[in-house]
Amino acid sequence: MSKIKAAIVGYGNIGKYVLDAILSSPDFEVAGIVRRNPNDVPVELKDYKVVASVKELGKVDVAILATPTRSVESFAKECLALGINTVDSYDIHGGIVDLRRSLDATAKEYKAVSIISAGWDPGTDSMIRSMFEFMAPKGVTYTNFGPGMSMGHTVAVKAIKGVKAALSMTIPLGTSIHRRMVYIEVEEGHKFADVAAAIKADDYFAHDETHVTQVDCVDSLKDMGHGVNMVRKGVSGNSQNQLLDFNMKINNPALTAQVLVASARASLKQAPGAYTMIEVPIIDYIYGERESLIKKLV
Amino acid sequence: MSKIKAAIVGYGNIGKYVLDAILSSPDFEVAGIVRRNPNDVPVELKDYKVVASVKELGKVDVAILATPTRSVESFAKECLALGINTVDSYDIHGGIVDLRRSLDATAKEYKAVSIISAGWDPGTDSMIRSMFEFMAPKGVTYTNFGPGMSMGHTVAVKAIKGVKAALSMTIPLGTSIHRRMVYIEVEEGHKFADVAAAIKADDYFAHDETHVTQVDCVDSLKDMGHGVNMVRKGVSGNSQNQLLDFNMKINNPALTAQVLVASARASLKQAPGAYTMIEVPIIDYIYGERESLIKKLV
Repeated sequence: MSKIKAAIVGYGNIGKYVLDAILSSPDFEVAGIVRRNPNDVPVELKDYKVVASVKELGKVDVAILATPTRSVESFAKECLALGINTVDSYDIHGGIVDLRRSLDATAKEYKAVSIISAGWDPGTDSMIRSMFEFMAPKGVTYTNFGPGMSMGHTVAVKAIKGVKAALSMTIPLGTSIHRRMVYIEVEEGHKFADVAAAIKADDYFAHDETHVTQVDCVDSLKDMGHGVNMVRKGVSGNSQNQLLDFNMKINNPALTAQVLVASARASLKQAPGAYTMIEVPIIDYIYGERESLIKKLV
Repeated sequence: MSKIKAAIVGYGNIGKYVLDAILSSPDFEVAGIVRRNPNDVPVELKDYKVVASVKELGKVDVAILATPTRSVESFAKECLALGINTVDSYDIHGGIVDLRRSLDATAKEYKAVSIISAGWDPGTDSMIRSMFEFMAPKGVTYTNFGPGMSMGHTVAVKAIKGVKAALSMTIPLGTSIHRRMVYIEVEEGHKFADVAAAIKADDYFAHDETHVTQVDCVDSLKDMGHGVNMVRKGVSGNSQNQLLDFNMKINNPALTAQVLVASARASLKQAPGAYTMIEVPIIDYIYGERESLIKKLV
């Protein structure tokens, strides 16, 4: 059986874990790594092609986009136009429908497949939320994140004047309500009290309980662990009080990378077009022969 | 929009809950109920056609098989041969691959769709087990059932000489190990100690910790509640200790019925053939317009 040739586009935090996930998948091989600066080749990449554009890589079955969310659309279109499937972990919930429409048109034009928002939320959490919905159609699902570092909120803090370094932790308080624990180093010439007030007034934090703490070294607090609790109390037919509950505690970039690789595998089994994870049969994400998987897992 | 015309085949415990689930689904209508004795019409069925064969019902889109597991194959083939989709909650894990092959051939011949083993285990548990598998490919998933009544074990107890009435409860002890709590009424002329020994020696119980208790009235102990805990500690890429955990506490027949109705809906969106639940996109099980569902759930 020939292996799936996967390119890694972007080699930051997620990209490194994507490499791990590819190397531990028996059906994959690394086609190469696409970086803004192809001359920046860390030691673990010395056996691979490191290039500036996916066009330089020869045959690629699927490009795994480990780029910032806002660059996903343009990178995906470039790959799809070459007939290369793409997967991404685009994570702006409000933009998913539009991204799907846009990439669907390109994918169909070039007979390729794109699986979008393939991480854990959006991603596998979306799959479980959707299962809860049909298992108990009446009810409310609460998604409670953390404890764990929020990338989006951390970036928002860093943008505030007087912040030298920052970390925003998300603490779940239940019923989708979250506390924000913000740790900052303050730049010289700024007062902590003023910076803290500015953070609390920022739209990212104004609606949540937010605590700001000054620390000497933000870096020493960083932990890639994260978690989620999704809980639904709902109704099946006329039967009330159906209780569904999902929990995980995970290395955040490692799970995102693993889901991207699983989605890359699934992309090769879909008809041309763009899909979210809830639109792809679960079995297509898994390595193995169909009847063996059914025997083992169903 | 015309509604999905669903026939309920079999009107025992599950069939009654299927009626509830159909009536609470805005996109479904009851095409009729198929019973061995069509003259047995309880009051809640007086407004519906109750017949001895699905052939007497006119147009039916999908037949929901709420029959005993061992009758599923023959009922399914009869419906599929009429071009009617079927869903069932066939629950003998070792027989699923064969049932799928058998119904796949018939379904393709008559251009119909069959979704098999659509309950909660096999069924929605299978979907979550499969997700855990691709999220953390190395590791072990433990499925812990209960506390709740086991239908299969209860039937096994009832078959033992001297048992007048029985209930077998499954108690989870973790790592897929279960205790069996068996409650029996003893027939006159039999000694409890002998009956209890025979139960413990039965192949259904010999391998598990089993406790047998004599009671005056088994019926007063019956509770349709059940539960499951599925837990996996696994590896994503090279990252160890990814912790995934799913729990539910549910009315057992109500959830089975709701999953059957969701699968009936999904059956209308698949190409001819037979499928297990892990082979069907999650979105197809849910009522609603595609982009709205993506916006709400992804």
